[in-house]
Amino acid sequence: MPAAEVDALLATARTFVREVLVPLESQLLHGTWAHSEPLLAGVRAEARARGLWAPFLPRALGGLDMPLDAYARLSEVLGWTPYGHYACNCQAPDVGNMELLLQFGTDQQKATYLEPLARGEIRSCFAMTEPEHAGSNPVWMSTTAVRDGDDLVITGHKWFTSSADGASFAVVMAVTDADAPHRHARASQILVPLPAPGYTLVRNIAVMGESGGGWSSHAEVRFDGVRVPFTNVLGAPGRGFALAQERLGPGRIHHCMRWIGICERAFDLMCRRAASRELAPGDVLANKQQVQFWIADSRIEIHAARLMVMDAATRMAREGQEAAREEIAYIKVFVANTLQRVLDRAIQAHGALGMTDDTPLAWWYRHERAARIYDGADEVHRSVIARRALKPYLASATPRD
Amino acid sequence: MPAAEVDALLATARTFVREVLVPLESQLLHGTWAHSEPLLAGVRAEARARGLWAPFLPRALGGLDMPLDAYARLSEVLGWTPYGHYACNCQAPDVGNMELLLQFGTDQQKATYLEPLARGEIRSCFAMTEPEHAGSNPVWMSTTAVRDGDDLVITGHKWFTSSADGASFAVVMAVTDADAPHRHARASQILVPLPAPGYTLVRNIAVMGESGGGWSSHAEVRFDGVRVPFTNVLGAPGRGFALAQERLGPGRIHHCMRWIGICERAFDLMCRRAASRELAPGDVLANKQQVQFWIADSRIEIHAARLMVMDAATRMAREGQEAAREEIAYIKVFVANTLQRVLDRAIQAHGALGMTDDTPLAWWYRHERAARIYDGADEVHRSVIARRALKPYLASATPRD
Amino acid sequence: MPAAEVDALLATARTFVREVLVPLESQLLHGTWAHSEPLLAGVRAEARARGLWAPFLPRALGGLDMPLDAYARLSEVLGWTPYGHYACNCQAPDVGNMELLLQFGTDQQKATYLEPLARGEIRSCFAMTEPEHAGSNPVWMSTTAVRDGDDLVITGHKWFTSSADGASFAVVMAVTDADAPHRHARASQILVPLPAPGYTLVRNIAVMGESGGGWSSHAEVRFDGVRVPFTNVLGAPGRGFALAQERLGPGRIHHCMRWIGICERAFDLMCRRAASRELAPGDVLANKQQVQFWIADSRIEIHAARLMVMDAATRMAREGQEAAREEIAYIKVFVANTLQRVLDRAIQAHGALGMTDDTPLAWWYRHERAARIYDGADEVHRSVIARRALKPYLASATPRD
Amino acid sequence: MPAAEVDALLATARTFVREVLVPLESQLLHGTWAHSEPLLAGVRAEARARGLWAPFLPRALGGLDMPLDAYARLSEVLGWTPYGHYACNCQAPDVGNMELLLQFGTDQQKATYLEPLARGEIRSCFAMTEPEHAGSNPVWMSTTAVRDGDDLVITGHKWFTSSADGASFAVVMAVTDADAPHRHARASQILVPLPAPGYTLVRNIAVMGESGGGWSSHAEVRFDGVRVPFTNVLGAPGRGFALAQERLGPGRIHHCMRWIGICERAFDLMCRRAASRELAPGDVLANKQQVQFWIADSRIEIHAARLMVMDAATRMAREGQEAAREEIAYIKVFVANTLQRVLDRAIQAHGALGMTDDTPLAWWYRHERAARIYDGADEVHRSVIARRALKPYLASATPRD
Repeated sequence: MPAAEVDALLATARTFVREVLVPLESQLLHGTWAHSEPLLAGVRAEARARGLWAPFLPRALGGLDMPLDAYARLSEVLGWTPYGHYACNCQAPDVGNMELLLQFGTDQQKATYLEPLARGEIRSCFAMTEPEHAGSNPVWMSTTAVRDGDDLVITGHKWFTSSADGASFAVVMAVTDADAPHRHARASQILVPLPAPGYTLVRNIAVMGESGGGWSSHAEVRFDGVRVPFTNVLGAPGRGFALAQERLGPGRIHHCMRWIGICERAFDLMCRRAASRELAPGDVLANKQQVQFWIADSRIEIHAARLMVMDAATRMAREGQEAAREEIAYIKVFVANTLQRVLDRAIQAHGALGMTDDTPLAWWYRHERAARIYDGADEVHRSVIARRALKPYLASATPRD
Repeated sequence: MPAAEVDALLATARTFVREVLVPLESQLLHGTWAHSEPLLAGVRAEARARGLWAPFLPRALGGLDMPLDAYARLSEVLGWTPYGHYACNCQAPDVGNMELLLQFGTDQQKATYLEPLARGEIRSCFAMTEPEHAGSNPVWMSTTAVRDGDDLVITGHKWFTSSADGASFAVVMAVTDADAPHRHARASQILVPLPAPGYTLVRNIAVMGESGGGWSSHAEVRFDGVRVPFTNVLGAPGRGFALAQERLGPGRIHHCMRWIGICERAFDLMCRRAASRELAPGDVLANKQQVQFWIADSRIEIHAARLMVMDAATRMAREGQEAAREEIAYIKVFVANTLQRVLDRAIQAHGALGMTDDTPLAWWYRHERAARIYDGADEVHRSVIARRALKPYLASATPRD
Repeated sequence: MPAAEVDALLATARTFVREVLVPLESQLLHGTWAHSEPLLAGVRAEARARGLWAPFLPRALGGLDMPLDAYARLSEVLGWTPYGHYACNCQAPDVGNMELLLQFGTDQQKATYLEPLARGEIRSCFAMTEPEHAGSNPVWMSTTAVRDGDDLVITGHKWFTSSADGASFAVVMAVTDADAPHRHARASQILVPLPAPGYTLVRNIAVMGESGGGWSSHAEVRFDGVRVPFTNVLGAPGRGFALAQERLGPGRIHHCMRWIGICERAFDLMCRRAASRELAPGDVLANKQQVQFWIADSRIEIHAARLMVMDAATRMAREGQEAAREEIAYIKVFVANTLQRVLDRAIQAHGALGMTDDTPLAWWYRHERAARIYDGADEVHRSVIARRALKPYLASATPRD
Repeated sequence: MPAAEVDALLATARTFVREVLVPLESQLLHGTWAHSEPLLAGVRAEARARGLWAPFLPRALGGLDMPLDAYARLSEVLGWTPYGHYACNCQAPDVGNMELLLQFGTDQQKATYLEPLARGEIRSCFAMTEPEHAGSNPVWMSTTAVRDGDDLVITGHKWFTSSADGASFAVVMAVTDADAPHRHARASQILVPLPAPGYTLVRNIAVMGESGGGWSSHAEVRFDGVRVPFTNVLGAPGRGFALAQERLGPGRIHHCMRWIGICERAFDLMCRRAASRELAPGDVLANKQQVQFWIADSRIEIHAARLMVMDAATRMAREGQEAAREEIAYIKVFVANTLQRVLDRAIQAHGALGMTDDTPLAWWYRHERAARIYDGADEVHRSVIARRALKPYLASATPRD
């Protein structure tokens, strides 16, 4: 995609966000899904009309065919407001499911699941995390999918199955071959149309005070003997982890760039507040050195974060995901922590107002606390980085006799 | 109060909290006020039956007459659960209003406002903060109370008037003498029975996603010519700030000790989680050095926080509030920040579970973010401390010719 | 010791430090030991004349018989200047050796080693750390002391044997019974008169750029078959670790209180600088909010540190060292880190001047970096704290079937 | 310069550093200048022989003509060891003086000062900072240069005139027109051959315990009526600040990249230590999660630092210094603080060894503490960043009536 085209798209997106989405923010953040969904349908139509639909999808599927590094920049622009990605049909978890289907789906799977998703007619979810097992150890999983004739019978308990409420299908991670010699070859990803006999949505989990609904929810679900044809396996059986890795790499870049968008919005709100809030007649908050330094430190960190994400995206686009694995670990830790600090400073600069839902800061403060947890907690990525850094040193260490 | 009696009370309170309050936590945190209020009525009856009612009030008013340092320890115990103070009728903002009435109220004011409050029959609120003015500059205020015959006519706009919803009266801070030479002598505190003609509860502000209700809410209110008799002034006219100071000193100690209670609960939850959550069969989270260090650092900081609060409380009990002013500033900053760090670590140790409302951590995480803002933001107290520290040095600095 | 007597002693010490020691600071810090030693001899005579000699020793030995909590306060006063403790003959490592001899020495050992040390006629050292083994694992040690008739023959390699240069004897930790079933019962502490055949002072280690000399040095030493009578064992054979623990508990309190003295001095220098350094005519550094907040944060942290140290000292004085073990771990971590932060801020406030030896800040900055390493690194103490905190939780964790 | 040529140069430099400089480190860091200078003369001959001489100078002057972004990468390689830049004749302050002379010097000035400097035959210094005035306010300066016929007569007091000891000339910043309407147009930079009548080198300042000597020193100097011809003004009279700005921009990039070199060396030492230091037989430090996380956090921060410096260098090379001003402020703060954290972690990982001069860590720890102070303290740059960020917001803020 030529640079000029990318720039034009970014400009369009900026206008769209400011003109269409920001004015709806308050309604979207604080209403129910039943209230939001029709509003968002209108917003989506507008996004499509402005040529912002499904930016990462190929043109054949109605998308813009943006390469990863260009898309990362767009993702920042959309991140400026909580429903930016949803508006353009590039929201998690659908975006990840679309990428998987695109890359690994059979023609039939594409026709059944990808195409309506690409058109924004249906929604989907991804059921991997289990409440009984630590996410830091992804091969430890209790959900099973047992072969029975031409079918697979799925039994298990999942949570943080985001957007399950109202989803037309789930991609379910389940153990299909518990005895496979390599522990990363035991699970598969399976397409499960929803609702289905044996499937229960136990609850939309109350997360930071909100159970939400529809796309904006995180469900606990149960599969009690849910039966799907064996052909619903995505990719090959036993390739579940490999596919999850494929899914997570670009997903982390999307998240990171979205977080930078949030940082920029928080930064903008902090500066506005500093320039306008009077401590005494004529004496604004911006005169306080502490506020200045919150602004300066935030600017430095956001700048660093963006350079790192663009570097990782460029490397992944050029050399593939495996080559960029370490850079992705860097950004997952650095950007999530930058986000938390910037939001914290912006709230402090707003005083009591920062605690209210009169700005989107408090919404991000509570919901994006998860950024340091999902898709690999800080601790997981730091371990990965350390292991790789130490490897050559440990290999060469003189063994003790 | 003899040490043995204090110890016995603390033991009683601990049992009460664990037996009665903790089992109700989930309902109380996530239900509406209409749902919670009757539950809490039962809880309060139980608190009274166990001799834990109104610990800071004199016995004549049905209380326990605990001195500040003993009460501070009780406050920690009650802080273990979000409704601990409410259960024992020592919750903000009523506790502060009771202290003010006790110390400065006329006999009639006491009979009308204090006594039913002490019995837990009514609730009250405190209307000081204004959305248009920075809390860091408390003398800058737009609400006025103008003398008209035997009455005062109050006009103004307030927010974060916590618990106004359902309150039987407000203590309102208003300018009564805009021309007083000393700017700390311009405002008064005025008792306003609610509801009243001219008074509007504009909204329960959505704070971190929750508007709440009843005691558990923060209102925006308007006074448009609300008329009260001049005898409703609390203390003397022009003494508003002096009274606010009287109110805030012990209030900050109460808050700090409550926060330590929260810290201890978060610490307990973190340790339980560390000891029980398996990363792989037989390998618990507690084996991870990072988790151990979160626990160690939290323990050290909580220990420091408690010593500082007890030191401030002891000094205030012994030498009065003015003497302890600096120590109070220390704890307001230190404990609020310790609280935020400990909660953050406890959430991280819980992973996805930490984001949910299945533990009280997420509730505190979002609502106690305000601890660094209310009753003097970090920045206000740090300025006070620095000014006092620098004073002798600046006085002696050789002036430049 | 009556409170009034303690207060009088502290006042005397404060005057002594300011009148006698501070004026000599520059000479003492930047001259050689050959230059400093005679100056310090005069200072010591003055300390003795002012009744400040050997505050922790019993009166029979010429000391002041101060209990630990009173001594802790004195230690802060002396910590204000780098040679404060040396001036009063309560400097490490002699103070620890005197405590050990006092508590565990035979009459003959006391006559030979303790008495001249108490009079300040000789100096001593403590040889425990070995370059080949991590200090975090104190039972792993290569130095041995082998019985040979009535003698012990010591062979080993030690470093950070502080003040070995010029010392009249060393207390050497060596394995005397490698096969003792309990690994804490394998080593002994042995008195070794210096110099001795087989003993070599390899070098005064260059530490942060300075090799120093005399008391002010850290030696690497070798014992190649150094022979001492078996009666030179201190306490009982195999009690080496028990004695080391006895030595380290009060030692850590002494260090912590000394560090608080350094913090207070740095704080004083920072305030002086802030009040006098002009950024423009009439505009002093103290007007900068960042500088104010360095001052406020330092004040808060020093206050917390002092309360924690006094709490630990009081508990140790009252209940013994074992009871105060956890509190000692708290302060070792908290105070050492506070020290580093306060020094860092004070240097930053001084700008280029902070880098120079025109103030004592740079000296402390470089040499007290060791505070987070010696007598148990931060990581060792945090592990101890976490282990103790987790113990009850791990004990009760439901085992996995 | 073609990429392949840059890569080849970097490889040559890496080999040179490891083969020639690292083995001499211990001697160079801990000997006197009299001892070091002849060693360094040999090293410089070797650097020249390997084609690494004066990388930033044009080929006509014997240099490599490297553009800024390529030079920044080389600077990292040379930063790996404390004398790397000196070895290649690109050490501060000579490098800055050469850049100034190259850009602004007259032919005669170039012949007299630049050419012997480029050949490494002489050394120079830069006298700007005054002890009486804060470096954060560079226009406040007392040194004057008064016109007297064809001469300028310089009177003033400077310090941190690095490398004055043995320098053949100084570039002196002095007020030449105190009444110039624009306060940035009052001073000039003047070439002063040394020694000179009226010039005194008062002392080599003891910095972090070391007075040093020769190039490796920081002098306090006095100019008492030092007379130079008016033609010794560099650039035009009154252009002193403009030239200082020209000098500082690339200088900060050089410093930052050198600091990254130090970070990489510290990282390497930390990993080596982690992989080889045993805590118990067979159990190395690298097994500790805390150590792993020091390594991971250091890797992330160094990566961010490098991307930021390369981004700033690229922008400056492409668009000029003014365009890159903000990016330079970012890196000055971010890299200096990263440096301090990485060194601190590396020292902690080394335990007692980290305090010694057996590694270069302690040397950098003490001397690079200045990184947060010189060339604009953290606070100065953060103020600049905040001012620029707030400008558009303050401009648009609705004025209060």
